[in-house]
Amino acid sequence: MTNDKVIALLEQMTLEEKVDQLLQLAAAFYSDKAEEKTGPMSDLGLTQETINLAGTTLGVSGAKEAIRVQKEYMANNRLHIPTILMADIIHGFRTIFPIPLALGCTWDEKVVEEMAAISAHEAAVSGLHVTFSPMVDLVRDPRWGRVMESTGEDAYLNSQLARALVKGYQGDDLKNDVSRVAACVKHFAAYGAAIGGRDYNSVDLSEQQLREQYLPGYKAALDAGAKLVMTSFNALNGVPATGNKWLFRDILRREFNFDGVVISDWGAIQELIAHGVAKDKKQAAKLAIEAGVDIEMMTTCYTDSLEELINEGAVDVRLLDEAVMRILQLKDDLGLFENPYRGADEEKEVAIVFSQEHQDAAKDIAKKAIVLLKNEEILPIKKGETVAIVGPGANSRDILGAWSWQGKQSETVSLAEGASALSSSVLFGTEPFDYFTPSDTAIDEAISLAKKADKVILSLGETSEMSGEAASRSSIRLPKEQIKLFHTLQKYNSEIIVTVYNGRPLDLSDFDDAKAIVEAWFPGSQGGNALAEILWGISNPSGRLSMSFPESVGQVPVYYNVENTGRPYEVAPDEKYVSKYLDCSNYAKYPFGFGLSYSHVTYSGLVTSSKLSMEKPLEASVTIKNTSSLPVEETVQVYVRDLVGERVRPLKELKSFEKITLEPGEEKKILIHITESQLRYVHIDNQWRSDEGEFQLMVGPNSRDLLTSTFQLIR
Amino acid sequence: MTNDKVIALLEQMTLEEKVDQLLQLAAAFYSDKAEEKTGPMSDLGLTQETINLAGTTLGVSGAKEAIRVQKEYMANNRLHIPTILMADIIHGFRTIFPIPLALGCTWDEKVVEEMAAISAHEAAVSGLHVTFSPMVDLVRDPRWGRVMESTGEDAYLNSQLARALVKGYQGDDLKNDVSRVAACVKHFAAYGAAIGGRDYNSVDLSEQQLREQYLPGYKAALDAGAKLVMTSFNALNGVPATGNKWLFRDILRREFNFDGVVISDWGAIQELIAHGVAKDKKQAAKLAIEAGVDIEMMTTCYTDSLEELINEGAVDVRLLDEAVMRILQLKDDLGLFENPYRGADEEKEVAIVFSQEHQDAAKDIAKKAIVLLKNEEILPIKKGETVAIVGPGANSRDILGAWSWQGKQSETVSLAEGASALSSSVLFGTEPFDYFTPSDTAIDEAISLAKKADKVILSLGETSEMSGEAASRSSIRLPKEQIKLFHTLQKYNSEIIVTVYNGRPLDLSDFDDAKAIVEAWFPGSQGGNALAEILWGISNPSGRLSMSFPESVGQVPVYYNVENTGRPYEVAPDEKYVSKYLDCSNYAKYPFGFGLSYSHVTYSGLVTSSKLSMEKPLEASVTIKNTSSLPVEETVQVYVRDLVGERVRPLKELKSFEKITLEPGEEKKILIHITESQLRYVHIDNQWRSDEGEFQLMVGPNSRDLLTSTFQLIR
Repeated sequence: MTNDKVIALLEQMTLEEKVDQLLQLAAAFYSDKAEEKTGPMSDLGLTQETINLAGTTLGVSGAKEAIRVQKEYMANNRLHIPTILMADIIHGFRTIFPIPLALGCTWDEKVVEEMAAISAHEAAVSGLHVTFSPMVDLVRDPRWGRVMESTGEDAYLNSQLARALVKGYQGDDLKNDVSRVAACVKHFAAYGAAIGGRDYNSVDLSEQQLREQYLPGYKAALDAGAKLVMTSFNALNGVPATGNKWLFRDILRREFNFDGVVISDWGAIQELIAHGVAKDKKQAAKLAIEAGVDIEMMTTCYTDSLEELINEGAVDVRLLDEAVMRILQLKDDLGLFENPYRGADEEKEVAIVFSQEHQDAAKDIAKKAIVLLKNEEILPIKKGETVAIVGPGANSRDILGAWSWQGKQSETVSLAEGASALSSSVLFGTEPFDYFTPSDTAIDEAISLAKKADKVILSLGETSEMSGEAASRSSIRLPKEQIKLFHTLQKYNSEIIVTVYNGRPLDLSDFDDAKAIVEAWFPGSQGGNALAEILWGISNPSGRLSMSFPESVGQVPVYYNVENTGRPYEVAPDEKYVSKYLDCSNYAKYPFGFGLSYSHVTYSGLVTSSKLSMEKPLEASVTIKNTSSLPVEETVQVYVRDLVGERVRPLKELKSFEKITLEPGEEKKILIHITESQLRYVHIDNQWRSDEGEFQLMVGPNSRDLLTSTFQLIR
Repeated sequence: MTNDKVIALLEQMTLEEKVDQLLQLAAAFYSDKAEEKTGPMSDLGLTQETINLAGTTLGVSGAKEAIRVQKEYMANNRLHIPTILMADIIHGFRTIFPIPLALGCTWDEKVVEEMAAISAHEAAVSGLHVTFSPMVDLVRDPRWGRVMESTGEDAYLNSQLARALVKGYQGDDLKNDVSRVAACVKHFAAYGAAIGGRDYNSVDLSEQQLREQYLPGYKAALDAGAKLVMTSFNALNGVPATGNKWLFRDILRREFNFDGVVISDWGAIQELIAHGVAKDKKQAAKLAIEAGVDIEMMTTCYTDSLEELINEGAVDVRLLDEAVMRILQLKDDLGLFENPYRGADEEKEVAIVFSQEHQDAAKDIAKKAIVLLKNEEILPIKKGETVAIVGPGANSRDILGAWSWQGKQSETVSLAEGASALSSSVLFGTEPFDYFTPSDTAIDEAISLAKKADKVILSLGETSEMSGEAASRSSIRLPKEQIKLFHTLQKYNSEIIVTVYNGRPLDLSDFDDAKAIVEAWFPGSQGGNALAEILWGISNPSGRLSMSFPESVGQVPVYYNVENTGRPYEVAPDEKYVSKYLDCSNYAKYPFGFGLSYSHVTYSGLVTSSKLSMEKPLEASVTIKNTSSLPVEETVQVYVRDLVGERVRPLKELKSFEKITLEPGEEKKILIHITESQLRYVHIDNQWRSDEGEFQLMVGPNSRDLLTSTFQLIR
């Protein structure tokens, strides 16, 4: 079926059929259990006819169910157009991988692509066609609940990983490779910049900031071929994204040349009323269709009003036709006209979903995402050492994190289980240990274990409900009973390794006296095995923070690529009249890009050609040596600073990175190329271009500890 | 001298004389003490010739010195053009009034105008011509050090007070009324929106937000006739204000039609280099003169480079001529060509500066600025009650706050002194009491006093160095030893009244168990008397917060006029999927406009005409009754919400307020008029206009506790 056929199909459709094509309904509407259908149907006031014609579906799962739904759906609509089955597959389908913020810490496109490919495969054999991923919202505020769903604070890293995710989900031949699903990049735009880190809150940004920091991630996903874009819940500069014509028509469609499907987030079209920019559903429908939103998720502004708006001449029917064509085209791009069931396959489902192979991958990826923040020669744990694993996380399987729809805690490996598989000298308790209000018996048990052990692994953290959608927090410290537990245990055993399960950068200053701190994030199905293998040194930690960890919430936002000021702190941090706080530093406690290993790696000999021109890239090299006796995976990070610009420039910006492995004692010379295009930024006129003149090149293991050299860009 | 004469004078000036007219130097350059001159002169590398020609002067003080400086200055320059003597007179000259944030809490234009008039008078007889006030930077982040210098978080309140300040400083006839000084509105623009509340940090705002919230305060001051504008230190959307052509040429000069003098903040032109938008002083000079900055304060980019830039044709000499003419015109507007000494008068100086009359005014104004935040029937203190006054503030004279140049702690009244003047049953100690690390003897003394007393006034707070320029803080709680002191004293006496001296909204949740909390701010020279008269009920407290007090720093920014979201918290605060934090409310602990009195005032019977049109204002009325036995000053606040707009509207916006007095038992009907122009806001196209449709009118004693009615705007 070609685009001509889509047009031919469109021509056969009635106005009602077109309008209904724009509606997306949840799985319950297509359930064969009457009790599941009744509630939502009456809530939305839909007729069975509309349900039969609604163009796409949300949250159907399982090959058998997917096939049944598709079959009945096609039988029930006049033109037998198939539906598309969509769902939120964010960091794994049933095999759950680390949360995206942790995936960001791998700094590894291959790993992230593999994660997406496995997720896609499990979802595809279970009957799904589209995933609402990647989420590439740049975020600088750890209070925001959905920070766990982003790959972090940096536009470049986010872009690289967004591209990898799209590639992993969609593969190279989406139509024919039925083990893949279409990707939907979200949330357009700048959802991560919610004021105060409060979910759904307004966003206010200059156009320059929006373009330079926030838009590149989405753009990268689109350039990689993402088929859909989801609107964000927030208002941007006073205009809700879902009704924001400038954002969708001018930027997304015209500038970014996107001709795929735009879908609203859940209920977001009707929320234009709650936002106070539409007085009723009719006006909401008009704003959204004019902005260019094709699919309305779970509200009925289009269904109820589009026909009337068109009949009145208030909305041009061509806007509707365009939207319908884009949806039909997506159906064609997914091959659904030829094969409406696509990858759905009950046999493959059994073989593939949560396969051993996928669990192995989940373990490997989780290991790469874990970040060693501190280690005073206490890790790795040595053979024969008796180790007590205590605290709320010790036996917890609540380590999948939010957005783990099909993930099951019952098939998740806890730290105690993972450690027990590695060592017979592991002590752990049996008392349930609450994250907020642990019982006295649980605490007493922890103390008694700590007394008996050579070392204590104190497994702390947040529950998965403490981050994710609608889970913003004003405090980024761990619950106070956990802090108290740490201080209590210190009295009995000073050899404490704190491990943390969580979904956001935290203020970890309460644990400054711990001998080691291991950031495990929500590591997924194989979390306990992965964490144990890191702790016992089976694998050398290699994760690097994808987001800065503040000293305290009072320092938020703290991010590595801050703009320079006229009174630079970096030049004279101890002087009074510089841009700083009186009571804490400007720097993150654990900066972007930071992460330790059990090895020692040195950087030296940064050499650059002194100039680069429009045609000829800068060439630089740096020597990196593993001076330890363990092999190591090192993430070499390259930052640039434009010393004089038309607009104030950040103190440093990540321009490239490379993961290398170094055997014990091995030394490698890394070549770095910087082209003129990498030096471009958004000027006052909102155009990307570079400035001639002097720049700094910085290379190192994280955004703080860098070798520096200078170079010139000449025209 | 008319403008023609200014032109004639300009024509006689050499290029060097013109360039030097743009330079502002500090008082030390004109000192008659050689040792004072030498340092700064060599630092800036200036010749005596340049110093003789520098157009304006900063920080000269005292009538005698002012006359000497002016006389010598005029003698030393060829055309005998007088200098202008400028200084930071922010909240009083030597008679110090409450800090501006506290002045904002008076909600009283008359009082604020009186403060400015007295300040001007003291400054004028001491020889000054210009004050760098009002500072009208809207601020929503209490971490920012200069929050103490702003009148708060609301564009309307700030605008009303900015107008009053300009009127108070300049009077009606600036040229002839030599008891006045010219006003300089600052800091243009949006300095108060520093990211993270870190002084000098970048500001990033949409143009709509900038225009709607941040610019109106400056505009109000200009409409009131302010003669000068000062640039802000921050970059706005990447472009430092001091080199921001759009801000100064397009907005200030063209849109706002301002033809007065633009002055850089201290060193801000040269800071264009530090910002990284100029590679050297020459480029900094070019950017600043092109932006329209007339006076360069304390750096020499213009002095060193303007001639060369003009000679090279890189800068049009007309830009220089315009700047010089504006400066000469200001000199003429101040009458300096006729009377170069203006108000400087040694005899008047003795009679007027820090006169009893001014001190009385300072006391009255401080009383109106104090805000009673909490009172569990413990205040006012009754006759005969024995009261212990303890804590670091008890005997402190560090209550002037930052920007109190000529204020003297030695002539400031402490709380212990003020209270002793009112009551013989006051106990206070003699041990020095540190704000951060009180000695054990000081604490012991406080305990022993608390034991003996019926009630305890625990005087806590920040030192004046903890707010003001370059005094941002990541913590907004009081120092921990003060919190500890409160808990200690509670063991001995539960009747504790906490009073607070400070320069920013604080997290006062540590004192939730106090029986009363009195926000005294930095109340100025008569602070102790004012605070005592409030505590003992000589005056009924009437201050209302000019800025919201957060629950904690993790809730920042919290401000009353938040934009609505698509998932409104207000509608269902207990539901999960609304815009909120999991661990604290969205609301301020003490909201904007809030303040208690010792009386009880009721609001009832809000009645509105149902419609307003372009021509005919809305008429509404509300009945306000004092049901107590004390006379009271009540601030009636009127808020409006636009229910459906083109852009998302705030939940409420202050549109007017009225201070009324009510005798015991008295009832007043207040008439409210709302015109169409008050309903305008900045639309997507950056134009101010109103939306027809439904609005809410809200009336009450603060931004939280409001009666609500609705009305329609019809065209």
